This record gives sequence, C-alpha cells and structure tokens, in this order.
Amino acid sequence: MNLHPDYLLNDVNEPSDIKRMSLDELKELATEMRQLVLERDAAIGGHVGPNLGVMELTIAYHYVFNSPHDKVIWDVSHQSYAHKMLTGRKIGFMDPDHYEDITGYTSPEESVHDFFEIGHTSTSISLAVGMAQARDLLRPEKHNNIVAVIGDGSLSGGLAFEGLNNAAKLHSNLIIVVNDNQMAIDKDQGGLYQGLKELRDSDGKSPNNIFKFMGLDYRYVADGNDLQTMIDAFRDVKDIDHPIVLHVNTQKGKGFAPAEEHKMEYHWRDPFDLKTGEDKHPVVNGYNKAVMAELDRQVNAGAPVVAINAAIPDVFGLKEFQKKHPGRYFDVGIAEQDSITTAVAMASAGARPVVFQNSTFLQRAYDQLIHDMALNDSPVVMIVRGGTIANTSATHQGSFDISMISDLPNIEYLAPTNVEEMISMLRWAIKQTDQPVVIRQPEKTLLHGQPSQDDYSTINYDVVHHGSEVAIMAVGDFWQLGEEVCEQLKNKLNIDATLINPKSVTGIDQHDLHHLAENHDVVVTLEDGNLSGGFGETIARYYGPTNMKVLNFGAPREFADNVPLEVMNEWYHLTPKQIVDDIEKVIHSL
Amino acid sequence: MNLHPDYLLNDVNEPSDIKRMSLDELKELATEMRQLVLERDAAIGGHVGPNLGVMELTIAYHYVFNSPHDKVIWDVSHQSYAHKMLTGRKIGFMDPDHYEDITGYTSPEESVHDFFEIGHTSTSISLAVGMAQARDLLRPEKHNNIVAVIGDGSLSGGLAFEGLNNAAKLHSNLIIVVNDNQMAIDKDQGGLYQGLKELRDSDGKSPNNIFKFMGLDYRYVADGNDLQTMIDAFRDVKDIDHPIVLHVNTQKGKGFAPAEEHKMEYHWRDPFDLKTGEDKHPVVNGYNKAVMAELDRQVNAGAPVVAINAAIPDVFGLKEFQKKHPGRYFDVGIAEQDSITTAVAMASAGARPVVFQNSTFLQRAYDQLIHDMALNDSPVVMIVRGGTIANTSATHQGSFDISMISDLPNIEYLAPTNVEEMISMLRWAIKQTDQPVVIRQPEKTLLHGQPSQDDYSTINYDVVHHGSEVAIMAVGDFWQLGEEVCEQLKNKLNIDATLINPKSVTGIDQHDLHHLAENHDVVVTLEDGNLSGGFGETIARYYGPTNMKVLNFGAPREFADNVPLEVMNEWYHLTPKQIVDDIEKVIHSL
Repeated sequence: MNLHPDYLLNDVNEPSDIKRMSLDELKELATEMRQLVLERDAAIGGHVGPNLGVMELTIAYHYVFNSPHDKVIWDVSHQSYAHKMLTGRKIGFMDPDHYEDITGYTSPEESVHDFFEIGHTSTSISLAVGMAQARDLLRPEKHNNIVAVIGDGSLSGGLAFEGLNNAAKLHSNLIIVVNDNQMAIDKDQGGLYQGLKELRDSDGKSPNNIFKFMGLDYRYVADGNDLQTMIDAFRDVKDIDHPIVLHVNTQKGKGFAPAEEHKMEYHWRDPFDLKTGEDKHPVVNGYNKAVMAELDRQVNAGAPVVAINAAIPDVFGLKEFQKKHPGRYFDVGIAEQDSITTAVAMASAGARPVVFQNSTFLQRAYDQLIHDMALNDSPVVMIVRGGTIANTSATHQGSFDISMISDLPNIEYLAPTNVEEMISMLRWAIKQTDQPVVIRQPEKTLLHGQPSQDDYSTINYDVVHHGSEVAIMAVGDFWQLGEEVCEQLKNKLNIDATLINPKSVTGIDQHDLHHLAENHDVVVTLEDGNLSGGFGETIARYYGPTNMKVLNFGAPREFADNVPLEVMNEWYHLTPKQIVDDIEKVIHSL
Repeated sequence: MNLHPDYLLNDVNEPSDIKRMSLDELKELATEMRQLVLERDAAIGGHVGPNLGVMELTIAYHYVFNSPHDKVIWDVSHQSYAHKMLTGRKIGFMDPDHYEDITGYTSPEESVHDFFEIGHTSTSISLAVGMAQARDLLRPEKHNNIVAVIGDGSLSGGLAFEGLNNAAKLHSNLIIVVNDNQMAIDKDQGGLYQGLKELRDSDGKSPNNIFKFMGLDYRYVADGNDLQTMIDAFRDVKDIDHPIVLHVNTQKGKGFAPAEEHKMEYHWRDPFDLKTGEDKHPVVNGYNKAVMAELDRQVNAGAPVVAINAAIPDVFGLKEFQKKHPGRYFDVGIAEQDSITTAVAMASAGARPVVFQNSTFLQRAYDQLIHDMALNDSPVVMIVRGGTIANTSATHQGSFDISMISDLPNIEYLAPTNVEEMISMLRWAIKQTDQPVVIRQPEKTLLHGQPSQDDYSTINYDVVHHGSEVAIMAVGDFWQLGEEVCEQLKNKLNIDATLINPKSVTGIDQHDLHHLAENHDVVVTLEDGNLSGGFGETIARYYGPTNMKVLNFGAPREFADNVPLEVMNEWYHLTPKQIVDDIEKVIHSL
C-alpha cells in the first residue's frame, strides 16, 4: 500500500513531470523523497547518507536535462534512489510491498534512464567517456549531454583517475559532477582531499586545481544542497561543447540529523528503528571479534603486526583496533590495488601486514595479487570476507574468490570451518614468513571446534569421521552442510560416509586423497562459492585418471541478483536432500 | 668473454666504488654503460630507450645515496640495467656468455640492491610508501631514504595515483622521482601530460601542480641527463624529512641517435643489428595481419567498429589501423582498467569495440571484466595475446588467462586453432550483440584450416577425426600437439584416437561430451595455459561422476622465469611422448 497518497511525488511518472513544478514544489519533493529514503532503508536496509545528500542535485538534474536523451551515470550508484523515484520507480519507495522490487543500484532492466548495472566505485568517468566517444562517432548530430556523477570518496580509486585522464582528450560535451561531501564510506584518505579542500575554501578559485591541470574545464558550486543554485549550475553547463568538471559541495546525510552527525554509521544501514536509530536485528560478528582480539594479543606481545584496509573498516570491526593502535592502522581509502601493493612492501620490510578485504572489492586488485604478492612470494596475511553464495546484489557477488585466489601460485588460501580453527590459522599465518596466506572468513553460522594442526605449512586434512564408500569434503562455511549430508546418507542410504575438513582450497593432501581410494567409491566436494575454477575442480582433476567418482557442489557460472538464499540453494542443488539424491544416482550407476 | 676489459666499469663491484670517481670518470662510465645496453639488447633483445635515458639519473643515485641502506624501487624496472651494472651484475652486460644470467627486471634473488620482482608499471609509489611506513614503525632511528623512480608513462596507471594519494599521508622521508621522458611505450595519452608539460615549460614554477595539489613537496630538474645537475638534485633532497616529488626531465633513448628519433620502436627491441638497426629475425605475425585486414574490411563495410588498446599498439600491429582510421582508434595509455570500462560504454552506445590486450596486463582489469563487462553482459569484443606457456620473464607470465576469463559468467572465451577460424570467430563476435566475446590469439605456429561453423552462439565441437578408446581435446595453440599425440598413439599403441577442436574454453558441448562415452574410455585435454581453473578442470568436473577417465595437460600452479620452452615442456609433461606414456598408464589401469 502506498504510504503517502498525499505526496507530490505521486504525480511524477517521468522526469519531465517535474519540469512544470515550481521551486517550492520541487523543494517539497526533496523533503518527501528524503522521508522515503529513510522509510525504505529503515525497513529493508540500504544506503542512507549518500542518498540524502544528493536530493537537490538529482532533482535539478532532471529539471534541467532531458533524460534519457541526456544520460547520467551514477558512480557506484548507491546514491541513485532519488533518480529512481523520478524515473518511474517511485512505487519501490512508497509502498513497502514493492520495496524489494527495485534494487539499490542502477539497472538497465528496470528503466531506460539507467545505462549500466553498477555497484563498485570509480567507474563512472570511464563509462561516460566511452558513451561520449560513441556519440561523437555514431551520432554527432544528437548533441546530447553525457553526465557522470562521482563522489569525492570514489575519486581515490585509480580507475577514476584513468577516466579523468582520458576525459581530457575529448573535444565534445562531457560533464563530470564531483559530488564532494567530504567523505568516503569512512573518512576520505590521502593527499587528494587536501587539494579538494583548498578548492572549496577558495570558492573554487585556487590556481592549483587537479582538474585544470589535466586540461579539464572547471566550475565550483558552493552549496549543492540549494536547489536553485544547482538548477542554475546545471543550466550553465548544459550543452557545453567540451569536458568540464562541476565540483559540487554537498552534505552527506543532509536533512536527517543523525545521518549528518554520524556519517559513517549512516552510510549504509541494516534495517533500523527510525525513531531510536537502533538496529532492528543487531549482529555481533563472532569471527570479527575473535580476529580483532587475536591482533590485539599479537600487538601486545610485540609482533610487528599492522592492519590495512581499503575504506571499509566497519566490515571487519577495525575501528576498535584503530583506536587502540592508531600507528598500526592503515586505511588507504578506496584504493584496493594500493592496499595490496603497499602491504607487500611492508612485509618485505619486516612488518606483518594483515590486509582486510571484501571478496567483491578484492577483484580490483587481481594483478596486485599476482604480480606483487604471489610473484614476490610476499608473506602478506589477508582476511577475506564475502567469499560465499549469498543473497546480495549481483554487483557485489563475492563467490569468485576461490577461482581468483586459489588458482594463483605461491598463495595458500585457507578456509577455516570454525572460529578456533580460523584463529589458529591466523596465528600461523602471522608467524610464518614464507608465503602469502589468505584466510576465508566464514559468513554463515559461528561454529566452534578444535583445530587438528597449528602449523599449516603442510596441509593435513582433518578426517573428522572415518567411514567408507562416500567421502564428503566440506569446505569452510559448508561444514554444517557436510554434517547434514553425512547424516542423511546414514539415514536414507545407510552409508557411513567419511567427513573431511580440507582446511585449504589450494594445497591438496595427496596422501589422504590417495588413501581414500582404498575404501571409497565417491568423493563429494561442497564449497560455498563458484564451481568454475573452484576447489571441487581441483579434486576432480586429481581423480580424473582414476576410478574414483567425483561430485562437485557449488554455484554455477552465473550472476544472481538479490535471490533469497533458500531459492538459490534449491537452484544450485545445495540442499542436503538434493545432494544425497545426486550421490545416490552415482552410487546406483557403479 | 668480457668484451670490454678496458672499461672503467670493471672497477665497479659495489655502488660505493663510484663514489671516489671524478665527474669525468662518471661521465665516461655513462658512455660505457650506454654501449653495453646497446650491445646486450642487440644480441638478446631488451629495453633500449628506457635504459639509455636514465644513465645519469642512475649514476647520480648511487653516487649520492648509500644502497642498500637507502632503497630505490624502479617502476616496472625495465630501466634498471644501469642499476644492475653498478650493483655487482656488470658481467651480465659485458660478457655475452653471461647475458642470459641477469634478467631484464629487478630481482631480489640477484642482488640485495633489488627489493621486488617487478615487470608491470605503476606499482613503485605504493611499494615505496609501504617500505617507508614499515621503516617508520619498526626502525625509525634508521633514517634511510626510500626512493621510487617512476616514468611519466606509468603515471597514468591508476595504481600510481592511488600511491601518490597515500604518499601524501607520510610525515617522513620519501622521494618520488618522476622520470619524465615525455613517452609511454608509445606516445603519452591523456590530460595529465598537458599538466606535466606546463610544469616543464615553466621550469617547474607553474602554480598548477598536481603533486602540490595532493600535498606533496616538489622540485623540478630541467636536465636529468646532465650528471652534475642530477648529483646536485639528489644531494638536495637526500635525507629530506617528508615526501617530495623530484620531477626530472630526461630524454628517452639518450645517446643513440636512432633511439632518440624512433622512440617507440626503440622502447623494446628484439635482437637487432647495431649498425643497420634492422631486426635480426624479422617476424610478420600472420594472426595480427589477418585481424587488421578483417577490421579494415568491417570499417569499410560500414560496421561501427572501433579499436581500443592500452599503450601497446605495436603488439597487435594497430599502427596501420590508426593511420587508416584515426577516428576509430583509441589508445587509453597505460590504463587497462579504463580500456575495458570505456569499451563497455561504447558497446552500450552502439559501437562495436574491439579491445586488444596482453594477457599479463589484462590482469590489471579483472574487476572491469567482472563488474563492468560480464555483469552488464556487454557485447565487447576482445583479442587477447600472450595466453600461452612461454619463455618469458615470470613478471609477464600470461598463462593465467583461462582461469581469469573463462571462470566468469556471460563471457564466451574462444580459442581458435588457426587463422581462418580466428577470423570467422572475430566476424561473428563483431556481428552479435548478445554477450562479451574474448578471442585467444594463437602464439605459436600460423596454421590454416576450414572453420566448421560461423555462428558461435552455440559451440559445436569440431570432431576432426572420429576414432575410439581415447579422445584428444586440443585447445587453440595446442592443436598441433594434439595431432602429434594422435599420431604417436596410433604408432605406439595402435589406438585410433578421436581428435577434437573444442573452439571455446567456456561453453562445453554437452552433446558431444555425452556421446564420447559410447566408445571412449579416456578423454585427454591439452591446453596451452595453467591447469588450475583451466579448461581441463571443466572437463574433469563434467566427467567426475562417470566412468570416463580424464587426463589434463597444461602448466602447474607456479611461476617460471625465463625458462626455455623445451625445458618447460619437459617439466610439465607436455611432449607428445610424455603425454602418450601417461595415457598408456591410464589405459593399462582400465
């Protein structure tokens, strides 16, 4: 049910509908849309501050420009809620029954006003340059505007700089809106922000201007949350015949006091109570907690441990570490490549860097994994989160991690099944200096257990139960699934299956694999990630020339966008019953 | 035999040995070392221009600083020859019998004066920042200098910018030498270079200064090829207590007229005749030639084709295309991420971008493959070279490509076995607009053949010979190997093996794979790349639950540094004889 039948927004079906509104009406619209952002985010979670900050900018954009003839690309697109409300998708913000119908990111499948699926930062300038180049080549008579909106936080990502560099080569229309709210997810990091501050402080007049340095035209807008100002600014640059940077000062979280004050906490929120600001389902991540406690212990014991992350300290609970050990805490900003390369150097100089990465963002540092970390056999330690099959936006699908990391030489990619094992691995990883070690933090249930080794330089599989006929190798987060499959094999087929924790998705324990053949016919791998390039294929290749039957379970080579986990598990044949049925078929074929 | 027993360089065993030389002797040393660069490169190939340009810079560095107490990191390290000559490795440049003993890149295994294996650009600043951070944390009393030397061309790579951004956060010694020779491999690309030119033209005095914008101190050196000037410049910044950029103007190819004039041609040379400048073993790449002819044909037929590359036009013969169709040629500079993202945008706007990438550098755009190209199912066409097991530096090992690309959703990764098939695939790839298509250009022999399909939206394996018992699936460049294995199977074991060209390393032809089981016991995959995450594992997983035996051949999970191909083939069990022996063992176990 539409919660706000009285809102002006009800009359807006296309962006052109706002062109006949008065300034007061447009301001009213901004107020309404702020309320809708808060209501939806409070109900189902989402980006708060980035959306509240760009209401005026977005309304002014659609008031002045003609979408989709003119094209706007929202960097990372987590600030596109207002754009969505004005482009035919308001129901996804007004009616709780339809909240889930509209994603939190731009989506060409939803609307002709969106041009790309985007969820990672720093891509918008390159995308806009490409669109402008194609326009100039194919439809030079169209003279449409191409606009990129990029936050100051996203500017530190190297791709944004590559985009700016090539934008300057254009001799045609391109408008790069730098939405400067003086924040990344957490605080901005690095020298760039000193320069941006000088530009703000001089009302854009400082002669030292990175954008002009690169040959781009430049204008400054001091108050991007003033609607008339933004309308005037966009009118001034509309149909410009060369690339220009419009540097707009906005306030993150604008219009909602808690979000204005607690900018990082309100960057993204899980469902929360609008009145109290409290999380509806507060979660303490037991793995994070244990890792932080271990780092603390290591520092206190004199280990040269440092913690490095790229703009996402809260994902790992690193704020506490930062408070306790500020000299050992490094946030490189949105700059994943730099986070790895600088860690390699710190390791070479005797520090023990622990890098904290989300799988989906670590993709941005693949060559740094290969060329800097693996090739140099650098004893960097890394904790990776989000390597899992999950109900996320496809833009943030983290299930590529095993292929991304375990197919590379020299790196040991460990997959603990419980918190004690994870800490045991972390201790060893920090202590050794022979190779890079990456640890895949479990994302599902917090389990406890007893590690079967404390030195992981040689991986010995933990054969938790010795059975026969069928051996289940359950990786990391799929440990419980492995136990359930064993139980059902017992109950349904009266098979006493062997249950193995392989601990690592890189090194294989040839000894154990060899001896399994003595009294097993089928080996089953269960991994919480993609099958292509995954652990299961390593096992399938090992047994390829033998009589052993191998069955691999995991995710197929596809993107899944906001699919509930239970649905995905069914699709991917990952329920215990489906797995047991598949095993049964193989056994019957023996 | 040392070709130059009379050289001053003979007396230099450690960098400290040059500290007692006079300016004239040091200049003589520069002349000698230039000659040695030329002689070695002419004999075995190597980087010419980058090394000739930094003789004075390198001598001055070692004259002023105290290596390895002070530490220099050479970006991409292809300009490190002089550094190597002065740090105990002169024999690798004076004695042709030892040319191959010393690699063309920095190597900690060779010398304590080298800190990292480096062969990709744009990493040096992040590495230097990491070393400085570790120094400040662990050994603040040491006060040693950390120096990064980065070329202007490498500055366009996003990681360099990420590094600069974080360098500004340091409150201690860091010297970033920007070696500005006004060239990347080819011409510099982008707005950054306009700004650098203004700095050079104003003798470093322009108030618009990207480095100062980012909070870094800055000095300019107008003639970096004047030894006294460089010595003075380094003395001035030695032991500085904060980060500084030393912007040094040098001439690429300095001291060898052909290299000064033809800067791109002399960036890197295969073995050549020093007198005439001619290649000793001139090669025409038949695949390049055919691809360029096809693009030409497409453009002339009105297709909206554009060609995109990241600073390596010569690898693909793109200069000819640029000349003919300048408006359709895009060199984004050293900015691989941007090359993919901008191509995605151009495809979305109706152009048909063909991106040209080296496998090893494409690693730098892995997230752009996933998040921009695959997720958006963007009909970008890409030609990848260097996806092969080859006698290269480990820094440039391109054999990760199948894991990197084929494990991703939506992308079709085609592996043609001959030139006609490659062009057939390219035609289809450009014509279709359903998905990203990457084509793996063969690197070994130029073969000819008749494609068995011209629409690759569904892959039908080409079963070139229908036999029984054993089926050989030979991928791309390993096609000839497949033929040889079949022949030896016939001769040695009297097996009439089936020979299959799978054409693609992503899609599998389930129909063919299913029917193979009717009269085959063993399927053998041959791929010219890494086994981990490769094509063979896909086949092993497919047959995992069945009676089919699968044998995968390819490269193990390791780096190989300048290993002759014949040696590697032996190591990796990739000779026809070894393969047949392995197959025989499996057959005997049946």
